[in-house]
Amino acid sequence: MASKLWEKNTEVNQEIEKFTVGRDRELDLYLARYDVLGSMAHITMLESIGLLGKDELPVLLEELRRIHADIEAGRFIIEEGVEDVHSQVELLLTRKLGDMGKKIHSGRSRNDQVLVDLKLFTRAQLQDIAEEVRVLFEELQAQSERYKGVLMPGYTHLQVAMPSSFGLWFGAYAESLVDDLLFLQAAYKMTNRNPLGSAAGYGSSFPLNRTLTTELLGFDSMNYNVVYAQMGRGKMERNVAFALAGIAGTLSKLAFDACLFNSQNFGFVKLPDNCTTGSSIMPHKKNPDVFELTRAKCNKIQALPQQIILIMNNLPCGYFRDLQIIKEVFLPAFEELKDCLRMTAYIINKIQVNEHILDDPKYDNMFSVEEVNRLATGGMPFRDAYKKVGLDIEAGNFTPDKRVHHTHEGSIGNLCNDKIHELMEQVWSGFNFARTREAENRLLGR
Amino acid sequence: MASKLWEKNTEVNQEIEKFTVGRDRELDLYLARYDVLGSMAHITMLESIGLLGKDELPVLLEELRRIHADIEAGRFIIEEGVEDVHSQVELLLTRKLGDMGKKIHSGRSRNDQVLVDLKLFTRAQLQDIAEEVRVLFEELQAQSERYKGVLMPGYTHLQVAMPSSFGLWFGAYAESLVDDLLFLQAAYKMTNRNPLGSAAGYGSSFPLNRTLTTELLGFDSMNYNVVYAQMGRGKMERNVAFALAGIAGTLSKLAFDACLFNSQNFGFVKLPDNCTTGSSIMPHKKNPDVFELTRAKCNKIQALPQQIILIMNNLPCGYFRDLQIIKEVFLPAFEELKDCLRMTAYIINKIQVNEHILDDPKYDNMFSVEEVNRLATGGMPFRDAYKKVGLDIEAGNFTPDKRVHHTHEGSIGNLCNDKIHELMEQVWSGFNFARTREAENRLLGR
Amino acid sequence: MASKLWEKNTEVNQEIEKFTVGRDRELDLYLARYDVLGSMAHITMLESIGLLGKDELPVLLEELRRIHADIEAGRFIIEEGVEDVHSQVELLLTRKLGDMGKKIHSGRSRNDQVLVDLKLFTRAQLQDIAEEVRVLFEELQAQSERYKGVLMPGYTHLQVAMPSSFGLWFGAYAESLVDDLLFLQAAYKMTNRNPLGSAAGYGSSFPLNRTLTTELLGFDSMNYNVVYAQMGRGKMERNVAFALAGIAGTLSKLAFDACLFNSQNFGFVKLPDNCTTGSSIMPHKKNPDVFELTRAKCNKIQALPQQIILIMNNLPCGYFRDLQIIKEVFLPAFEELKDCLRMTAYIINKIQVNEHILDDPKYDNMFSVEEVNRLATGGMPFRDAYKKVGLDIEAGNFTPDKRVHHTHEGSIGNLCNDKIHELMEQVWSGFNFARTREAENRLLGR
Amino acid sequence: MASKLWEKNTEVNQEIEKFTVGRDRELDLYLARYDVLGSMAHITMLESIGLLGKDELPVLLEELRRIHADIEAGRFIIEEGVEDVHSQVELLLTRKLGDMGKKIHSGRSRNDQVLVDLKLFTRAQLQDIAEEVRVLFEELQAQSERYKGVLMPGYTHLQVAMPSSFGLWFGAYAESLVDDLLFLQAAYKMTNRNPLGSAAGYGSSFPLNRTLTTELLGFDSMNYNVVYAQMGRGKMERNVAFALAGIAGTLSKLAFDACLFNSQNFGFVKLPDNCTTGSSIMPHKKNPDVFELTRAKCNKIQALPQQIILIMNNLPCGYFRDLQIIKEVFLPAFEELKDCLRMTAYIINKIQVNEHILDDPKYDNMFSVEEVNRLATGGMPFRDAYKKVGLDIEAGNFTPDKRVHHTHEGSIGNLCNDKIHELMEQVWSGFNFARTREAENRLLGR
Repeated sequence: MASKLWEKNTEVNQEIEKFTVGRDRELDLYLARYDVLGSMAHITMLESIGLLGKDELPVLLEELRRIHADIEAGRFIIEEGVEDVHSQVELLLTRKLGDMGKKIHSGRSRNDQVLVDLKLFTRAQLQDIAEEVRVLFEELQAQSERYKGVLMPGYTHLQVAMPSSFGLWFGAYAESLVDDLLFLQAAYKMTNRNPLGSAAGYGSSFPLNRTLTTELLGFDSMNYNVVYAQMGRGKMERNVAFALAGIAGTLSKLAFDACLFNSQNFGFVKLPDNCTTGSSIMPHKKNPDVFELTRAKCNKIQALPQQIILIMNNLPCGYFRDLQIIKEVFLPAFEELKDCLRMTAYIINKIQVNEHILDDPKYDNMFSVEEVNRLATGGMPFRDAYKKVGLDIEAGNFTPDKRVHHTHEGSIGNLCNDKIHELMEQVWSGFNFARTREAENRLLGR
Repeated sequence: MASKLWEKNTEVNQEIEKFTVGRDRELDLYLARYDVLGSMAHITMLESIGLLGKDELPVLLEELRRIHADIEAGRFIIEEGVEDVHSQVELLLTRKLGDMGKKIHSGRSRNDQVLVDLKLFTRAQLQDIAEEVRVLFEELQAQSERYKGVLMPGYTHLQVAMPSSFGLWFGAYAESLVDDLLFLQAAYKMTNRNPLGSAAGYGSSFPLNRTLTTELLGFDSMNYNVVYAQMGRGKMERNVAFALAGIAGTLSKLAFDACLFNSQNFGFVKLPDNCTTGSSIMPHKKNPDVFELTRAKCNKIQALPQQIILIMNNLPCGYFRDLQIIKEVFLPAFEELKDCLRMTAYIINKIQVNEHILDDPKYDNMFSVEEVNRLATGGMPFRDAYKKVGLDIEAGNFTPDKRVHHTHEGSIGNLCNDKIHELMEQVWSGFNFARTREAENRLLGR
Repeated sequence: MASKLWEKNTEVNQEIEKFTVGRDRELDLYLARYDVLGSMAHITMLESIGLLGKDELPVLLEELRRIHADIEAGRFIIEEGVEDVHSQVELLLTRKLGDMGKKIHSGRSRNDQVLVDLKLFTRAQLQDIAEEVRVLFEELQAQSERYKGVLMPGYTHLQVAMPSSFGLWFGAYAESLVDDLLFLQAAYKMTNRNPLGSAAGYGSSFPLNRTLTTELLGFDSMNYNVVYAQMGRGKMERNVAFALAGIAGTLSKLAFDACLFNSQNFGFVKLPDNCTTGSSIMPHKKNPDVFELTRAKCNKIQALPQQIILIMNNLPCGYFRDLQIIKEVFLPAFEELKDCLRMTAYIINKIQVNEHILDDPKYDNMFSVEEVNRLATGGMPFRDAYKKVGLDIEAGNFTPDKRVHHTHEGSIGNLCNDKIHELMEQVWSGFNFARTREAENRLLGR
Repeated sequence: MASKLWEKNTEVNQEIEKFTVGRDRELDLYLARYDVLGSMAHITMLESIGLLGKDELPVLLEELRRIHADIEAGRFIIEEGVEDVHSQVELLLTRKLGDMGKKIHSGRSRNDQVLVDLKLFTRAQLQDIAEEVRVLFEELQAQSERYKGVLMPGYTHLQVAMPSSFGLWFGAYAESLVDDLLFLQAAYKMTNRNPLGSAAGYGSSFPLNRTLTTELLGFDSMNYNVVYAQMGRGKMERNVAFALAGIAGTLSKLAFDACLFNSQNFGFVKLPDNCTTGSSIMPHKKNPDVFELTRAKCNKIQALPQQIILIMNNLPCGYFRDLQIIKEVFLPAFEELKDCLRMTAYIINKIQVNEHILDDPKYDNMFSVEEVNRLATGGMPFRDAYKKVGLDIEAGNFTPDKRVHHTHEGSIGNLCNDKIHELMEQVWSGFNFARTREAENRLLGR
């Protein structure tokens, strides 16, 4: 039988602390480097409004740069007994600089510190994701061009329907990623606004210069209204999750196709050996584990928005501790998606396609629609041509002509990969990664 | 006990037909006018490539315009026994023009016809939504300005924390809508690409000119790859649902706040009488029904993406009948959200705020943080000032100074509503509604 | 541009009424007959505690029975201008009986009236679902027995793995339904508790006899605590949705299998012609529309719990108008699931299986594991046997022995369908449908 | 810019292995003790059918018991380079016993080994959960009895409506847990069926005695059909998640109420100090962190079913590697929910209620309904009494009589906590925890 917490010999308060701190110390490591960046911008601004001594600023900045370097080198830890990353940074500063270290906390609250950390972290992650998407896009386009001459069956209802090609198949997923980036960009733009200065969500009486921190941190603009800046917590995570879910949906579908086409009942593709697991007694077995795991991880990511919505929904405005739990599901999602993107790009690069699929007569009938169109182009009303070919097939008089002459935009014979590449460039130009990188480097004195 | 379908005296086939047709005839009415537009563009293109006679085109166009006018006038129905909107339109044409009416079907399949209908419908709906969001945005900004001098308590953890204001409260939701429009715009851009010409998802041997239909229908560009054009079904709906869910999330939160602030335990706002229901024996009771229904409807819309994902997920590429079911949940969602936007704008316009909230002494302590900052600005280290005020309060020596001097960007004294308005204009300029309207009018000969 | 609601010439109040009434008049028709039953029990109880005249009770009961008969005959409507089913019933009574008709409202509120209506409706629907599940279960078991001798490939990772059989395939889904009924029964038990008498969620000062209405309506017990009775709204719907989602998951998976096995790349089954759509020019094409629609509808039902949770979550206790919106998604779900169950039972009854699948040599290797086990049973260590057969296959020395001798419980040669039938009977005996039917008939004087 | 995986100097294969192994080594620790139990039952059965020597069985059993003891003592680890718990156990055995250690693998596959591990783990966790629910139930009932005389306002629409009491409030959540246990029990019954012997999901040619392992492991029955046994993976997790989500929903709602009632705008309850965080400068601030975290964690658990459904949905039958990812979200959920249950029980035990709430005149009007009922009981038609009291209130002639005489079942004056306790006992008697514990102890020689 369950024993009651308060009847146990354990320290109740310890259990409660464990419950409230939760995984914060572990999760805050994701945010550490961004916490330092935020502090650097904040104190630079404090000095500009006279809340920090002219002589103190360089000392604190130098020390913060040192901590930043430690974080990058993997030497930073949140010590036992220290609650979170903010306290750890302050501790390191006061150890070295005494009371001066405490001054980084003036004019802000833990709330807007977390907000800005999350924004900076997410902004960097979204850039990573965009770049991995781009890599996969290029691979898919390359394969689409390489195999544009290899036909494969096109299905509707999983029924053999019409001729398709590997050029179309690879190319479709490339184009899908362009649309996915539209949403990633919306997420990026929403993220790239400065919440710093909102304090506990109601601003403060300090004469802060939020325009300055916005510039120093390379944000596009700020979350002006301080109540909205706070309200962005949870909301940003949800919207970013929407964008991740979109990409995950594309990867998951590609993985599903590949697992199906890798089945002996299709035999359309051969996946690289190191991405499948076999069976010594069934040498024909090539379990597409990497694609199955990609599919499952991406399906998990597709559930992320709903998870976040459930946690943040139906709460009135203002901060709640509930928001802490979102970090548990949000922060690790980027690494998972990046892994999936990298694995998929690797397999797509190595995948081999079967160039002889259509030798199998079970695919012959799919050329019937071509025949109908041929007759229709020749003047026969479409529905009559349709009938004639149908009767020919039933009578066994249909011999497929497997040459396919599709010429319109986006068809087998005219993939328009260059046009799709232009769409990608168009979207890409909407990101301004250089600007944020330069701002961060300037702060770090690089 | 349940009787077996095949043992009943009813016609099994009738039951099956009812099952497969489902709510298509009802739902297709949403799409009717767009189906006609799509057909007009298609036949104009057919004529240009010689698949329709020079003399036939104007006859067909005129008849289609007549049907379009009937639809707008509410005179169009899908007749008993007619499967869907496409068949109904063809039927009307052939009734009037004989076999010529059938020609609108050449060179396309029902699949890409539905795709283009959905795109045109959704594009129009997204414009409506954007415009309703804009109306609400302006109302919120107006109220923010009107009540910028009225203070209210700001909460964290639902605990009275710091001074806030109605200027901040209204203004926060206005700014929230700007970010929501970023995603609506991404959805709009994804939607505004032409799938027509993709046939059953594998293109066709007709020498279609998809560039021409793209221009005629006022699309930004096309879904080039025909496999991707088909793959966009479900995906577009999901991404649009993401954007709707974002707006719904903002409305739902605003509604929650308003319901809470309308409680006798807060008494911050008075909702318009026609939006509340009372009780003759409890005259103090003002049930905020309209806001509760808005909240619930918006929460339902927040579940829409997950619904769509569950239907379309883990299906390989190519068309499946499953996609039909998405229409049931997708098509009516726009009207629901527009209703909520309109109702919210109405209430926000009429809402009255309580200007005397802070007379209640239970809110006095929230001015303590102000005092801390005042001391800190005066030179005392932040954490020491914090301690001093805490001790004063405990000793009963704290008298709140209720004048609030917040000056930084986005604070009580400096709402930056003009800056937020600029953000809105920036996003708004990314839409190009005029272009699509002109294209549609040109097709309709207006 | 969107026009503002309050600037339109329409009656604002009309729009608001439309918004608040929503689809209630349509949805309440689902509840009408149960509303009458609830009222009959209520007034019988009222009479027993002296709140209704001895002579009034039979008059009111007779009139309510007449209304009930009208509902069953499809002659009941909610008239224009009447808000909901409760008002319509009261209206019919007062029209006929004058002020006496109003007395059915004494000692209860609209809140507990809706609660009891929903319980009675849901209870009846759950019985229907259980019975349809039972029909499908029997069909699946029958087919499992009929085809127990027909082997098919068993897959892991969609890779051909080991011999399976149609006996196993059909039988697996039958057994799945048994477990699904466990949850349906939990839902039934939760539903079958009487909320009547909870008034607006806080009880009343009337000396109600809730034990009596519990008996009259054939409930197992009551929701005692009146606050809990109210809290059950939304919670019951969510838990019932869990149970429906479980069944839907089983159907969806079965439908997916069938769609896959119906592809020309598998060719394992032939679905009844009236459940597929073909193409006159591709006679081989048998689009499994009915199964695809079943899959999609069932996937939609799998999203139902999340929809309900999103609407009801993070609301404090007590009634909110939000709960009204749950009806929109909850009430129609039963008919949808029943349709899917009936269609699936029909197809399973008519499905034909391919008895010659294993003639295709691509399935030969799956007999290798059998060979390993044969050697292991003969004494060779398992892993050595595994290696030997692997080497034989690679060397081309492996000839499959396609006779399969599986004897253990639940295997190809020993399906244990009788045992599974026993499990079903065990679960079935936990329902007590007769008791509720008798109670309802007694009330109706049948 | 993202660098391509295959252009990096890292070992590609290492990255792939990391990707595929994922968090398995960490997660398998949850399953270790159950893996040993499963192996003990399996080899006992193997010996009984002659596949293991009479002398080998005791040697292997003893060694497995030793490993089990190590696991319980926290001394078991999965070594670097060892893939999972199954391999680690086999490694320990062969290190000690040589080739004999390998024999535990005969006649089963990794697939059914994981299946049985998951079942045994989940069964134990469900028992833990049930017991923690029971503890909380008893606390809630105790507080309901203790405070049955303390009135509080009852709300509808968050508007003050009618008198309620702490007896009702605490008692409602107790009763809610009874219904939640109905679903936990359905989950328990579904879980408590033996999948062992299903091999890779298609059974085997070994003459296994699955009835014996079913008895040895204390299962209620088995998953007979081997295809269904495999299909249970994912399905069991989903259904268990349904049951956890139900409990989480109750806790989340209770936590929401408590956070609201703890606000200065209500002031109904005082939470224990160690469960709130304060602010030295705002001594009135008692942030209810523990309840907020409970709410958020429980809301996360409410998203669990959807997460699992998204991963497993629309996969045909047979094993897929996707199922591995479910472990990541499923295994840790139990500990999270148990923590929430324990914390809630602790707070409920310590919570203090405000006995003077109703001194505040803002709650006076809620006694009006009482007055209406009083008049109605005295003979005045309900709707007339309603009107009279309404007019009195408007005229300022209404003086509340704050004595509440509710007598019916489940009302303020008649909480029926004993009846609710009976319902709990009824549900509890449907679990048979002793049986499984005895079986496990027998295997372990205890």
